[in-house]
Amino acid sequence: MAKKASGGRLFGGIDVGGTKILAMVADEDGNVLSTAKKKTKGEQGFKAVCERAAVTMLEAAEVEGLALEDLTAIGIGVPTPVLPDGTTAFAPNLPGWKNAPLIKNMETFTTRHCYGVNDGNAGVYGEYVFGAGKGSKTLVGLFVGTGIGGGMCFHGELIVGENSMAAEMGHIIVQEGGRKCGCGHKGCLEAYASKTGMARRIAWEIIQEGRASLLSEMVPNGSYATIKSSALLEAYRSEDGVAVDALRELAHYLGVGVAAYITLLGPDMIVIGGGVFESLGKELMPIVKESARQRTWPEASYKDTKITLAQLGDHAVGLGAAAHAMHRFDQEVMNG
Amino acid sequence: MAKKASGGRLFGGIDVGGTKILAMVADEDGNVLSTAKKKTKGEQGFKAVCERAAVTMLEAAEVEGLALEDLTAIGIGVPTPVLPDGTTAFAPNLPGWKNAPLIKNMETFTTRHCYGVNDGNAGVYGEYVFGAGKGSKTLVGLFVGTGIGGGMCFHGELIVGENSMAAEMGHIIVQEGGRKCGCGHKGCLEAYASKTGMARRIAWEIIQEGRASLLSEMVPNGSYATIKSSALLEAYRSEDGVAVDALRELAHYLGVGVAAYITLLGPDMIVIGGGVFESLGKELMPIVKESARQRTWPEASYKDTKITLAQLGDHAVGLGAAAHAMHRFDQEVMNG
Repeated sequence: MAKKASGGRLFGGIDVGGTKILAMVADEDGNVLSTAKKKTKGEQGFKAVCERAAVTMLEAAEVEGLALEDLTAIGIGVPTPVLPDGTTAFAPNLPGWKNAPLIKNMETFTTRHCYGVNDGNAGVYGEYVFGAGKGSKTLVGLFVGTGIGGGMCFHGELIVGENSMAAEMGHIIVQEGGRKCGCGHKGCLEAYASKTGMARRIAWEIIQEGRASLLSEMVPNGSYATIKSSALLEAYRSEDGVAVDALRELAHYLGVGVAAYITLLGPDMIVIGGGVFESLGKELMPIVKESARQRTWPEASYKDTKITLAQLGDHAVGLGAAAHAMHRFDQEVMNG
Repeated sequence: MAKKASGGRLFGGIDVGGTKILAMVADEDGNVLSTAKKKTKGEQGFKAVCERAAVTMLEAAEVEGLALEDLTAIGIGVPTPVLPDGTTAFAPNLPGWKNAPLIKNMETFTTRHCYGVNDGNAGVYGEYVFGAGKGSKTLVGLFVGTGIGGGMCFHGELIVGENSMAAEMGHIIVQEGGRKCGCGHKGCLEAYASKTGMARRIAWEIIQEGRASLLSEMVPNGSYATIKSSALLEAYRSEDGVAVDALRELAHYLGVGVAAYITLLGPDMIVIGGGVFESLGKELMPIVKESARQRTWPEASYKDTKITLAQLGDHAVGLGAAAHAMHRFDQEVMNG
């Protein structure tokens, strides 16, 4: 209760992922006062997940002796674009999330103003407002994990496109006709610069070419896309050839993407995060930067962009969702 | 003088190209009241080109019986980024244009408020305010000629990046390690989807592979990058195999770029112009659209973007420069 007594407003932030829900109470400076966590249980359907998200939010509030009524508004980050009417577009990993009434349900279950945002966008917005990107004007963020999440902030606002579905940072094509991506297209950035993309290369080298690797012991079932980043770090530090080559290729291609974002948007900052870079940031960032430097046009524009690691870790999406709720609430409710 | 007597303000727009200068007087509705043209004579150096631009502007004014004092402000589109202090960044084809005091010179020679803008950006801004993009909120424009010019407009403003050098639409990499681009990098969009890129393919097929083509008669010296778009149209209509394959490849790759812009920015409109599309728009647009449709992610976002031909032709840069001057003047001078 101490923080609340200080007079600052409090906001809720919920990160709904494919496997778990993380809810948090945050103040206007981005301090996380409390958190709570539950399994998503997506198989129970859309409405059940919304209810679990609301209950997780309540539990996080109760840790601080608060009720949901003590939160000015709640932001919810979800693995789908959110349309202006508060419905979801689609969420491949969550059944029943196509055109589903996210905000309507969340406002019913929480009785608060709720605001929805794509999780990758939320993570970047969190870094923009409270993390590594604080103070930047144009920010591009890339989170490298199973896929590539991310987004773009421009002069205070998230760019979501006129269709509310843009900022799919991992799905620009960097190798036309190249490696198959999970989205069905060929040659997307994500097909090279994510764990899923890297896994195709690793599987090829170990299974097809019979290259020896620590990774074949670490991931005995061959599903390299789900390999833990800590295991990748161990293999990399052991100078495992397959791991080193695969991670360097990932970093090289991520640099191709970074170059494209600099060339197009001239951001003053690019933040890179996600599991792979939380574990291997020190090792991979020099490769990303050199690859980007060689491909940015005009070359002079490269030096004006700071490329740095994300800072908020697992809290990025929740904090970004809370910051988004704060921003939207002030735009829409406070200012009529 | 009739238009001026109506009370509306008049603006000057100057398009400084590598070979010619085109100046125009425009009203606030984008009507071009008069134009004048001169050779650039870039070899005479930066200051001389600025003087010629000012004289061309004066000649355009005099056609309408006006003096430069009758223009509220003048916009100048140049083949280089323009930095916030009014200096140029660099212009590969114009000697002495690196870090040159463009606005200082132009204001001295014209005695009016002058505003500088990159020519590709100006062309897109012209389409945004007065042309095919009128009414759109987020607009991406691509002009296909010797290279690819273009830009992005977002909620009323040109995106030029925090470094003032961004929006180099032709220099995102779509084929990592691929065809050499004029910028020195490999696999840029421009290396495939411009006349220069196409020329490399044509030269290869005719010279290395000995493929017969009308183009070898049309361009006897083998410099296919300078081929006129009207000649390309003739060869295409004659079903010349080399021309058809090369133009289809150009359109295919332009679609790869268009898909990237939709995936990233979710624009409500994309305008495509420049010499190649002024001549071959009808033939090539279906290929561009199909290629883009197949590569946009999420797929649902494709249908929200109208892809259309530019409308302003040779006037796009000058009108865009005039519109830019209007916008900046109102922001900076009128509103303090």
